[in-house]
Amino acid sequence: MPARNGRDRTARRERAMNYNQIFDQAIDRLHSEGRYRVFIDIMRNKGTFPNARCFAGHNGPKPITVWCSNDYLSMGQHPKVIAAMEEALHDVGAGSGGTRNIGGNTHFHVQLERELADLHGKDGALLFTSGYVSNDATLSTLAKLLPGCVIFSDELNHASMIAGIRNSGCEKRVFRHNDLEHLEELLAAEAPETPKLIAFESVYSMDADIAPIHAICDLAEKYNALTYIDEVHAVGMYGKRGGGISERDEAAHRIDIIEGTLGKAFGVMGGYIAADTRVIDCIRSYAPGFIFTTSLSPVLVAGVLAAVRHLKESNEEREAQQRNAALLKAKFAAAGLPVMPSQTHIVPLMVGDPVRAKKISDILLAEYGAYVQPINFPTVPRGTERLRFTPGPTHTEAMMDDLTTALVEIWDRLELELARAA
Amino acid sequence: MPARNGRDRTARRERAMNYNQIFDQAIDRLHSEGRYRVFIDIMRNKGTFPNARCFAGHNGPKPITVWCSNDYLSMGQHPKVIAAMEEALHDVGAGSGGTRNIGGNTHFHVQLERELADLHGKDGALLFTSGYVSNDATLSTLAKLLPGCVIFSDELNHASMIAGIRNSGCEKRVFRHNDLEHLEELLAAEAPETPKLIAFESVYSMDADIAPIHAICDLAEKYNALTYIDEVHAVGMYGKRGGGISERDEAAHRIDIIEGTLGKAFGVMGGYIAADTRVIDCIRSYAPGFIFTTSLSPVLVAGVLAAVRHLKESNEEREAQQRNAALLKAKFAAAGLPVMPSQTHIVPLMVGDPVRAKKISDILLAEYGAYVQPINFPTVPRGTERLRFTPGPTHTEAMMDDLTTALVEIWDRLELELARAA
Repeated sequence: MPARNGRDRTARRERAMNYNQIFDQAIDRLHSEGRYRVFIDIMRNKGTFPNARCFAGHNGPKPITVWCSNDYLSMGQHPKVIAAMEEALHDVGAGSGGTRNIGGNTHFHVQLERELADLHGKDGALLFTSGYVSNDATLSTLAKLLPGCVIFSDELNHASMIAGIRNSGCEKRVFRHNDLEHLEELLAAEAPETPKLIAFESVYSMDADIAPIHAICDLAEKYNALTYIDEVHAVGMYGKRGGGISERDEAAHRIDIIEGTLGKAFGVMGGYIAADTRVIDCIRSYAPGFIFTTSLSPVLVAGVLAAVRHLKESNEEREAQQRNAALLKAKFAAAGLPVMPSQTHIVPLMVGDPVRAKKISDILLAEYGAYVQPINFPTVPRGTERLRFTPGPTHTEAMMDDLTTALVEIWDRLELELARAA
Repeated sequence: MPARNGRDRTARRERAMNYNQIFDQAIDRLHSEGRYRVFIDIMRNKGTFPNARCFAGHNGPKPITVWCSNDYLSMGQHPKVIAAMEEALHDVGAGSGGTRNIGGNTHFHVQLERELADLHGKDGALLFTSGYVSNDATLSTLAKLLPGCVIFSDELNHASMIAGIRNSGCEKRVFRHNDLEHLEELLAAEAPETPKLIAFESVYSMDADIAPIHAICDLAEKYNALTYIDEVHAVGMYGKRGGGISERDEAAHRIDIIEGTLGKAFGVMGGYIAADTRVIDCIRSYAPGFIFTTSLSPVLVAGVLAAVRHLKESNEEREAQQRNAALLKAKFAAAGLPVMPSQTHIVPLMVGDPVRAKKISDILLAEYGAYVQPINFPTVPRGTERLRFTPGPTHTEAMMDDLTTALVEIWDRLELELARAA
């Protein structure tokens, strides 16, 4: 059938054009907005964080200092974590080999869930492969289990919470960031018998501010709503045992579901929720994103167990982080750099333009060996592009001085405005 | 304001009742259907897979043989994998410390993506934290980028593909399992200019059958559709270099997007897609499930690199797996056990009832030290509950004989029917 073959070939050609054109246009949009992302190719040097090697555009690795890691407390190189992972690797092997239900439930998983439940003063906890998945799977499943549920969501909630809420298919009301009056207005507008869930974060990572947890819980009690808090930028770092802002503010018992990550302050990878056993049992049993996925490698889980246990006992890392964050903020402010107000360990510098943010970042890396990623849309709203520094316990004052000097030089070179001493 | 406090207390009490009741009912439904899941608490013994220790309901760990691991080739204990992970652990530390865009793009990630692209003969590849996330993120994003896209989905597609398709918000047409006529009927019913995507698996893990890849690609060309194949139960195990069924059938060049896992035959954890660079660039840039999550730990990535490289060169593990799968099928059949037809390395035994499937599994574990998980709804349709065995290169013939004897004894004890020799 030569005619049909001829048609097929034409169809293939047209097809190739059609789909490829659409994909090319999608990529062109990113370039034209100056927000096409280039992943910087690095390897951190265990034992000497924040030092790393950078591979991109050089002949061989070049040494750099990392200023944008979310391994906030350098637990990724802690001897206890490394030793625990090495032991697990040799004892039980590389992966879990299955889902939690089918062969992939190791004794490490069971122990870590107990440890995390205890950390937050809850009956139970549940591990996920990431913080993203824990938010997506829990929020989408929870809302599906509650018929007619309405979710009240802070406008700056993380993309993973937004995904979970959207994927739940339920009604959503977005309240202005940390705005209690607006939240109450929205809560009051719903019928008393409607199931309600308030979803918010404790530490907002890009704005570096903190939610008024008790006041939100007051509203939740008044309007009979469940509460869901994302503590990924707080667990390990706040509270006497690293239980997060809800521990620091003695509010954990008022929150129904606390969500956290194992990939930031705990230095490894994965996510979790802590809650009442019946909530855990529901999510464990009904969430596809939990059920149908290979469980965390026991090597990772063993490392996290060591990190969580260590940070329950030790305040040294938390104190050094807070000290260094305060120092860097002070140095930036003294130099007139546009440091944003921060109640936390995160130090954002406002730039306000994607091309300029990338340019500053590129110069810092190429000429000063300082690595900080520009933060562009969709991570932050357009027009609020920024650089986001996360000094940890292992950054030295000399590193901070070098960084501040470099930034001032770049600010001058690009003819950006510095606030002169008031 | 005592009156208000009184109201609040009442509200709290009512609230506790309402939500808890709903959660309790959700759990009760599982119990009443006999599909409440109990996770078996185990640790595999590196160096002696499929041997493991079982913790549940015993005083101290008890030795067991694992028959349901998806670490199909025992790569989770391969010396090259263990050595690579140990080296990475000591060289760069426990976690990546960030998203791929913000500090979490290590040189290991870059290398592994090149290796996986090469494995499938594609220009590019992209890593995800799991196979589940790779399906969910890619399918939902792809369909959103193609305006008016219709997805054609095999009725037995995995939950993660179903999630991705649902989360894309686009139109879906479900075709009967591996039914080319039905697929063509559905394709023909759409307008020629409508963007189309056919999503299917190569090896269906629960039914152990294989898709007619070339015939599906013929239809895709005829109707100008993109093709997306899930090869999670095939990569590493089929094809001369472990490129999956699409390599074995010399069809990889006809597939637009090949999706695979790093947590089954490659023995570690994580997922990926391989495709044309422009598709990779789009997913990398637009998929929230890729963008907003901490990247895979470099320790895992280093282990997978070693596993992929090894399985590109070595056929020994693949051959031993196929040999042992054929042997176990033959032993089950000779004993009259209801082994389902299988074109693959997976050996399912049909039971057809959730309570009975769990009972057989419980007896096997408690009395015979053989661990195989019952497979119940929602993993398989109700009424088709089964036991699913995955013999690998490290299972011995003696283990298979013990297992077959045990199953026959249990079948007799429970008065289940055995097919007597034909």
